[in-house]
Amino acid sequence: MYELGVVYRNIQRTERSVADQLAHFGSATVHEAMGRVGLLKPYMRPIYAGARISGTAVTVLLHPGDNWMMHVAAEQIQEGDIVVAALTSENTDGFFGDLLATSFQARGARGLVIDGGCRDVKDLTEMGFPVWSRAISSKGTIKATIGSVNIPVVCAGAWVTPGDVIVADDDGVVCVPRAVAAKTLAAATTREANEADKRAKLASGVLGLDMYKMREPLAAAGLRYID
Amino acid sequence: MYELGVVYRNIQRTERSVADQLAHFGSATVHEAMGRVGLLKPYMRPIYAGARISGTAVTVLLHPGDNWMMHVAAEQIQEGDIVVAALTSENTDGFFGDLLATSFQARGARGLVIDGGCRDVKDLTEMGFPVWSRAISSKGTIKATIGSVNIPVVCAGAWVTPGDVIVADDDGVVCVPRAVAAKTLAAATTREANEADKRAKLASGVLGLDMYKMREPLAAAGLRYID
Amino acid sequence: MYELGVVYRNIQRTERSVADQLAHFGSATVHEAMGRVGLLKPYMRPIYAGARISGTAVTVLLHPGDNWMMHVAAEQIQEGDIVVAALTSENTDGFFGDLLATSFQARGARGLVIDGGCRDVKDLTEMGFPVWSRAISSKGTIKATIGSVNIPVVCAGAWVTPGDVIVADDDGVVCVPRAVAAKTLAAATTREANEADKRAKLASGVLGLDMYKMREPLAAAGLRYID
Amino acid sequence: MYELGVVYRNIQRTERSVADQLAHFGSATVHEAMGRVGLLKPYMRPIYAGARISGTAVTVLLHPGDNWMMHVAAEQIQEGDIVVAALTSENTDGFFGDLLATSFQARGARGLVIDGGCRDVKDLTEMGFPVWSRAISSKGTIKATIGSVNIPVVCAGAWVTPGDVIVADDDGVVCVPRAVAAKTLAAATTREANEADKRAKLASGVLGLDMYKMREPLAAAGLRYID
Amino acid sequence: MYELGVVYRNIQRTERSVADQLAHFGSATVHEAMGRVGLLKPYMRPIYAGARISGTAVTVLLHPGDNWMMHVAAEQIQEGDIVVAALTSENTDGFFGDLLATSFQARGARGLVIDGGCRDVKDLTEMGFPVWSRAISSKGTIKATIGSVNIPVVCAGAWVTPGDVIVADDDGVVCVPRAVAAKTLAAATTREANEADKRAKLASGVLGLDMYKMREPLAAAGLRYID
Amino acid sequence: MYELGVVYRNIQRTERSVADQLAHFGSATVHEAMGRVGLLKPYMRPIYAGARISGTAVTVLLHPGDNWMMHVAAEQIQEGDIVVAALTSENTDGFFGDLLATSFQARGARGLVIDGGCRDVKDLTEMGFPVWSRAISSKGTIKATIGSVNIPVVCAGAWVTPGDVIVADDDGVVCVPRAVAAKTLAAATTREANEADKRAKLASGVLGLDMYKMREPLAAAGLRYID
Repeated sequence: MYELGVVYRNIQRTERSVADQLAHFGSATVHEAMGRVGLLKPYMRPIYAGARISGTAVTVLLHPGDNWMMHVAAEQIQEGDIVVAALTSENTDGFFGDLLATSFQARGARGLVIDGGCRDVKDLTEMGFPVWSRAISSKGTIKATIGSVNIPVVCAGAWVTPGDVIVADDDGVVCVPRAVAAKTLAAATTREANEADKRAKLASGVLGLDMYKMREPLAAAGLRYID
Repeated sequence: MYELGVVYRNIQRTERSVADQLAHFGSATVHEAMGRVGLLKPYMRPIYAGARISGTAVTVLLHPGDNWMMHVAAEQIQEGDIVVAALTSENTDGFFGDLLATSFQARGARGLVIDGGCRDVKDLTEMGFPVWSRAISSKGTIKATIGSVNIPVVCAGAWVTPGDVIVADDDGVVCVPRAVAAKTLAAATTREANEADKRAKLASGVLGLDMYKMREPLAAAGLRYID
Repeated sequence: MYELGVVYRNIQRTERSVADQLAHFGSATVHEAMGRVGLLKPYMRPIYAGARISGTAVTVLLHPGDNWMMHVAAEQIQEGDIVVAALTSENTDGFFGDLLATSFQARGARGLVIDGGCRDVKDLTEMGFPVWSRAISSKGTIKATIGSVNIPVVCAGAWVTPGDVIVADDDGVVCVPRAVAAKTLAAATTREANEADKRAKLASGVLGLDMYKMREPLAAAGLRYID
Repeated sequence: MYELGVVYRNIQRTERSVADQLAHFGSATVHEAMGRVGLLKPYMRPIYAGARISGTAVTVLLHPGDNWMMHVAAEQIQEGDIVVAALTSENTDGFFGDLLATSFQARGARGLVIDGGCRDVKDLTEMGFPVWSRAISSKGTIKATIGSVNIPVVCAGAWVTPGDVIVADDDGVVCVPRAVAAKTLAAATTREANEADKRAKLASGVLGLDMYKMREPLAAAGLRYID
Repeated sequence: MYELGVVYRNIQRTERSVADQLAHFGSATVHEAMGRVGLLKPYMRPIYAGARISGTAVTVLLHPGDNWMMHVAAEQIQEGDIVVAALTSENTDGFFGDLLATSFQARGARGLVIDGGCRDVKDLTEMGFPVWSRAISSKGTIKATIGSVNIPVVCAGAWVTPGDVIVADDDGVVCVPRAVAAKTLAAATTREANEADKRAKLASGVLGLDMYKMREPLAAAGLRYID
Repeated sequence: MYELGVVYRNIQRTERSVADQLAHFGSATVHEAMGRVGLLKPYMRPIYAGARISGTAVTVLLHPGDNWMMHVAAEQIQEGDIVVAALTSENTDGFFGDLLATSFQARGARGLVIDGGCRDVKDLTEMGFPVWSRAISSKGTIKATIGSVNIPVVCAGAWVTPGDVIVADDDGVVCVPRAVAAKTLAAATTREANEADKRAKLASGVLGLDMYKMREPLAAAGLRYID
């Protein structure tokens, strides 16, 4: 249940160096390193290809068709944050455009993750301010009803607590809770190291069947080959 | 982020009488009484019309196509519980049917809320075991991967903690956190008392415009009447 | 483009007897009688089965999550009207429930067609107040922004002018413009007369292939039978 | 790839008694008995609750907005058939209504499964002619382009060959290929016999965990209980 | 309701210079300048990024799976037009490809807005002929049923009258009625002038909270800050 | 119905030169050349723009959330193949990423068509390994349940038999059965030859109305021009 009408000013951000290093690994590897959890739903798509960021979450809860709280959120942004916007019901209006992006960027935000619509995508692309959203829409919003800033929210099916790490790229968005961020970074580092070796083997024509020793368990599961 | 592979046996359930009384008010009134939050998404529909229940949440996290943990959840059910099943990714398979319903009912469960599919709807209807689901599907599931029981989950966009109150009816499903359940019950009671009077006035032809004194604010907002 | 912030008090309703008689034929026959146009999209579903109504349209334009104008619309309802609610962007919130239905019914409305959500479906069913909506949702709405009443609107993909005839049943919703309502009623009457005869023939085993003389055009189109 | 413009008159229907007996078990049990395959997608919903049928498939391929071939299909129907209608692209128009149902019923059809829209649902309900469809829509169709009858089709994601058995009920629709129909009937019979015993045990409070001996494999998979 | 089987040859186009100048402002600013109305639904997406056009609408009404009227529309195109294609029911077939684009471009069309599918996107991209569509699909269409050209249509939820101005870019599509085009151009010009100043302030770190003087109304609405 | 747990090692691939030449024509022309059939549904989208490939199908059937059989499929790939992955129920998990792509590419695969999700799209783009999928998702999968390789499958609504030709580009994906591949190649060649001439005429301003001699049939169908 959401607490409405509040702005938490002091949130506990994940340690900066940990938050920053996670970008390198990307959402897929980080999600695997966490034990295959923490992803936002795949309808969340980047407005342009190629961005890969990580940062600490500043959250905001919006009402459908109303972006008033985005301005309240702007003040809470610190260098290295990513704003995570959740909605109280499904809506694709364009809650965010180039003016807010200018403000967010000036405050140090690295990007926005919003379970609603975004507009001015050409300007945002030129500014290099990446957004992951459920829609692109020119539809303007009003400023009539208060929500909250820096409360825990459900964004695109994931639970995000202020200060958690967000990792976002072309594959999607993952939320890493502050408590497991360092451990996840270590696991992602290990995972990546293993992948280089596997990639080389697979590129040389070695089969995953052999590399992962799958032939026996497949046979045990009943797989039959027919000539 | 979900903790995988765990079953919490001791959860703090909302006080029984509070949980039980909330059913009377229905999901819409309870949601309003909470300040208009806590609803699951409207794609969650009852498998048959007319059921209205409330109870304490026992949660379970499932993987797509796998209902193994439903059997683990069954053991944690107490009289007056409602099982809330979340999934690690979107899937409409039929995770639940008449055999599990027989077991859940025998353990004292009042119903199931599942962000996946349900089957045997004719049998469940005859048994009087209500289910709110995102789909109805004959598709069977396997028992291969462990999830968790009684961890906090995101179900259909709502955050549900074990022991929270679930209120479900033809209009949808709402989750009332344990901490605000008593307060919500009081607010719903007040709200309902007010509604009877309003209903009588409206039935007699009094307009909401007058009853709620809206004419002035509407004019202030610029509404113009044209003959 | 919508004109915002206006309420048209004097609309030209289709002649009552024409509007009333169209219900008998149902949405499918009426739509055919108009030349196969005028339907709202099929995602518009009745909240309960079996209702079949026709009446004159009173329109209302709402903003997402805001039902303020429903109260303004109530005052414009006359006996035999059906309220048609359009939205400025897609939204499934529960804009309408038993209190508004009590008011609408007291004013003489026969039902509601809304391109948004509806709640209190159990109460509405008991009241016999039918609603066709895109969703059922407990989600409450606010009263903050003005729209309009009795302007032409696009509702679920159809253009509806105040005073047009709405025909709604289990198959869907059709809008018959005032200018063609009498002609449509005549065409529907003729159409229905023809159908009784056709039904009897088909029931006796006569094939549509023969009754409609389709064998020749099918052969001309190249249809081949293979034994 | 579909063969267009052909009607196969002689199809090999599954043996009548096998086709007829499968209805008893329902789509979920039959699908399990086949090894958990053969289901149509869950968006296929019955137009009214409670029907449970099985029969032999007569297939028809339609173009969007065109139901001409339904009349061609009618002639190929024999007592005990179920018509399965596929489309060349997604479309929800109302390809089928009470007149065609009268004809199909007169020819001996038990129902229709259509990956498109259906109309006249009130009439069809009163006639007791069940339809499983992807939509309900008043939208009429034309008769301009030929498709085919009794070719293999993909309907709602499933491959259906003329003469296969279709089993349809409130849970969905399954297609049982002729070649495995007898074997599937036997497996369903065995399966059902086992279920009665299991149901009784579960109803008495025995847990699936114990009845299915799941505690050991769950522990082996790493499940931990926390008090 | 649509008038079928007609082609209006003489439509009143918005004044050329007004229609042409609107492109500069983009769909979001123009929609705001109109009072936040007139947008097509956000499922309408450009087939390639970066195009921004405005022009006068030539409308065409198509049937599902049938693009015959596109050729009729071609003859009505004048230099500076944008073709707006509506459908009588939802369909994603590929109604438009490189041959029609060649013809439309030769006639002076600047682009196409279609509530259906489009194909040959690689060719269209190379030709620089932008299309906004609900889908991309190779599916071919037939030429069997007549619709209309230059009647008012509902396209993707918006009412478009022939001669209105269409503005389309990466953010979506907006329709500006002829009667308000000049006024909208003026309002957009003013709006843009204001934005440059705002953007500079926000870029310098000034908060929207202060620039828009929101702190007081937010406090009045009950917003609380918690340290 | 799917045969589960089998791998067919010897499939009859379409003749290499035929399979290879079809890429040139693209999915739209090939689909038309086949008589307007064989397309996968348009929700199948390329992960990057501009790829156009053809090749012989190696099929694989996966379970939701489980990519085990992808490794089994890798071994069956020959130079010039395209892997076609179907699922037993709808699921958008990321079944495929850069490691599998490295293996598939090393084995000679030209691309992947998958009725599920894909991840590592940046890497795949850099590798030049095109994928057509229903979703992009970071969600990882498990290796627990066996499916099949090289059985006929329904992928995104199309029936694909191992050895058929797959043609995929920005417009979508089409499957050409082995038996008609040579004939389709010939028809596509003829079709393309005709198009060049048509394109030149249309570019010069000749109307399709005249070039295709449509004026008479349009008039016969009742089309009226209004000045």
